[in-house]
Amino acid sequence: MKDIAVRFKENPLLSPSDLTPSREGLEITCLLNPGVFQFQNKIWLLVRVAERPKQMENSISFPILTNKGTIEIIEIKKDDPELIATDARVINYKGADYLTTLSHLRLLCSEDGRTFYEPKNSPSLVGEGILETFGIEDCRVVLIDEVYYLTFTSVSKNGVGVGLRTTVDWQKFEKHGMILPPHNKDCAIFEEKINGLFYALHRPSSVDIGGNYIWIASSLDGIHWGNHHCIIKTRKEHWDSKRVGAGAAPIKTAKGWLEIYHGANENHQYCLGAFLMDLEVPTKVLARTEDPIMFPKTNYELSGFFGNVVFTNGHILDLDGETLTIYYGASDEFVCGAKFSITEILSLLTNI
Amino acid sequence: MKDIAVRFKENPLLSPSDLTPSREGLEITCLLNPGVFQFQNKIWLLVRVAERPKQMENSISFPILTNKGTIEIIEIKKDDPELIATDARVINYKGADYLTTLSHLRLLCSEDGRTFYEPKNSPSLVGEGILETFGIEDCRVVLIDEVYYLTFTSVSKNGVGVGLRTTVDWQKFEKHGMILPPHNKDCAIFEEKINGLFYALHRPSSVDIGGNYIWIASSLDGIHWGNHHCIIKTRKEHWDSKRVGAGAAPIKTAKGWLEIYHGANENHQYCLGAFLMDLEVPTKVLARTEDPIMFPKTNYELSGFFGNVVFTNGHILDLDGETLTIYYGASDEFVCGAKFSITEILSLLTNI
Repeated sequence: MKDIAVRFKENPLLSPSDLTPSREGLEITCLLNPGVFQFQNKIWLLVRVAERPKQMENSISFPILTNKGTIEIIEIKKDDPELIATDARVINYKGADYLTTLSHLRLLCSEDGRTFYEPKNSPSLVGEGILETFGIEDCRVVLIDEVYYLTFTSVSKNGVGVGLRTTVDWQKFEKHGMILPPHNKDCAIFEEKINGLFYALHRPSSVDIGGNYIWIASSLDGIHWGNHHCIIKTRKEHWDSKRVGAGAAPIKTAKGWLEIYHGANENHQYCLGAFLMDLEVPTKVLARTEDPIMFPKTNYELSGFFGNVVFTNGHILDLDGETLTIYYGASDEFVCGAKFSITEILSLLTNI
Repeated sequence: MKDIAVRFKENPLLSPSDLTPSREGLEITCLLNPGVFQFQNKIWLLVRVAERPKQMENSISFPILTNKGTIEIIEIKKDDPELIATDARVINYKGADYLTTLSHLRLLCSEDGRTFYEPKNSPSLVGEGILETFGIEDCRVVLIDEVYYLTFTSVSKNGVGVGLRTTVDWQKFEKHGMILPPHNKDCAIFEEKINGLFYALHRPSSVDIGGNYIWIASSLDGIHWGNHHCIIKTRKEHWDSKRVGAGAAPIKTAKGWLEIYHGANENHQYCLGAFLMDLEVPTKVLARTEDPIMFPKTNYELSGFFGNVVFTNGHILDLDGETLTIYYGASDEFVCGAKFSITEILSLLTNI
């Protein structure tokens, strides 16, 4: 098992204290899982900002959005017998699940891809409506025919699904509602149409038969999706035994569409691997890495809000098609960067 | 709580012994949950036929479909420590879930709606491909612009989703793949387009946040779906506290689209209720019955393969729009019929 990522020496690039909370009474708990794109000669991150009130010793408190866009704080005593709080990310109270933080998406940009700042007057993307009251998370950004497609996780008490917004100028956004119903996340649209169809990877979860597998779907308009196929499954006794999910948009190479994906095992260790899809028939998986190409090993990857995690949903490919810069969430708390050689990733694939 | 269904005195209309198994070595365990439609002046049922080998005392055995359309029998000793068999319908073996029966769909017809027979040379619909190796189930049939749309549950080790096939003549069928990814079932397409869009009810299930709720989606072509909304949720301490799911296509009334749905409680008792959607904006629910309009009470509804169940996914509305004949599965083993008064159902709705 070999970690072939070349991490930025500046890592972590962004920590929670680097940004200002979105409103009084909240603090930023995590900065993570940025969508990445290029616009006006800059590299942009659409960072997930997870917030909650300052935590008191004897209680758990977290915000949820109301229909009016205001927030409501829910506070639960830690000794409440109806509270189950074994996961830093999700708690159960009186039989219902809640997130411990509320996420929105914030734009940061950079000239060099290493130093990021919030430009003035940049809009934030926040949850809107009854399907996003627990926030929006982990956005993938892809540019197709001069339109940016933003696919993200929409969370509310109704469930966890995939939302879509589009923009051409990063000032005005068009909402297209929930494009994939619960339980679904990790949706990455391909960066170009194939034989006239949009394609997207996504990750439904099953309550009984099935699992946390990567599926592919196609669409005529990018908004309505069908023809779902299961293409990548978890592997017993592997690093990706418990769940797998797509990263950012697949990368077009001469050998096929290359996808960097995350896998987690029973211990919730999140690593990155890769698989390759046929250029013309992307429902066909040609090859997959046996081992991870990156696993948590630095301090900031091993410990934090939810330690032992590297998770990517955004990258920039150099013009030569050889150097891939991924941006990734470390320990669900920090934003980091790393470089890969596409040739090296391809060399680690095993034919299926 | 009042059961307002007028059950057919001929119930059960169909029992497993009434039909011949699809192949040697299997027996029919259950006949249930028919889709219903009219064609060539007859009433037709598209019955779910659940089969398995004759069961031996010390083992559980069940068939699964191979990619080639043949079947493979899996047999597991009842004392195998890796077997969990607490539900008649689903077992877990070595960490994976399996169905205890393999279902296909069979056509029966009737002149009077009470006596059904299998016409000669009628095709069966069977699972095809890797998303249907555990069979296809619980088909809804709806006629739109002279095309019959068949939505059914597709089951395989990849998960449980909604498949679509269409036909115009009930001889040739066009496959449209999986239109809603796991975990999803109970998909009922509306019988006409609304403002140019297809609409469908469906029932995704959530692994954590969310539940087993009824959602609605829309489509330009009936094949690709988007704009998902959650419209009907389970209700604590009600008869529909654990899961809800659409029945057949909503019925157009002067007051709105009327949907007969099933709800189950923690004890897996399945009853029927109703709700009403706005005629022009079907994502808007106007009213819902507080109590069930039908609950298991006869012998054949109380005991059978999976007792205490009434479940409908097919009906015929009289031309006057007043008398609704539902066909339903009783105890997951028998096909039955019952009549309702639309006026009476509407009178039991409570505004939301």
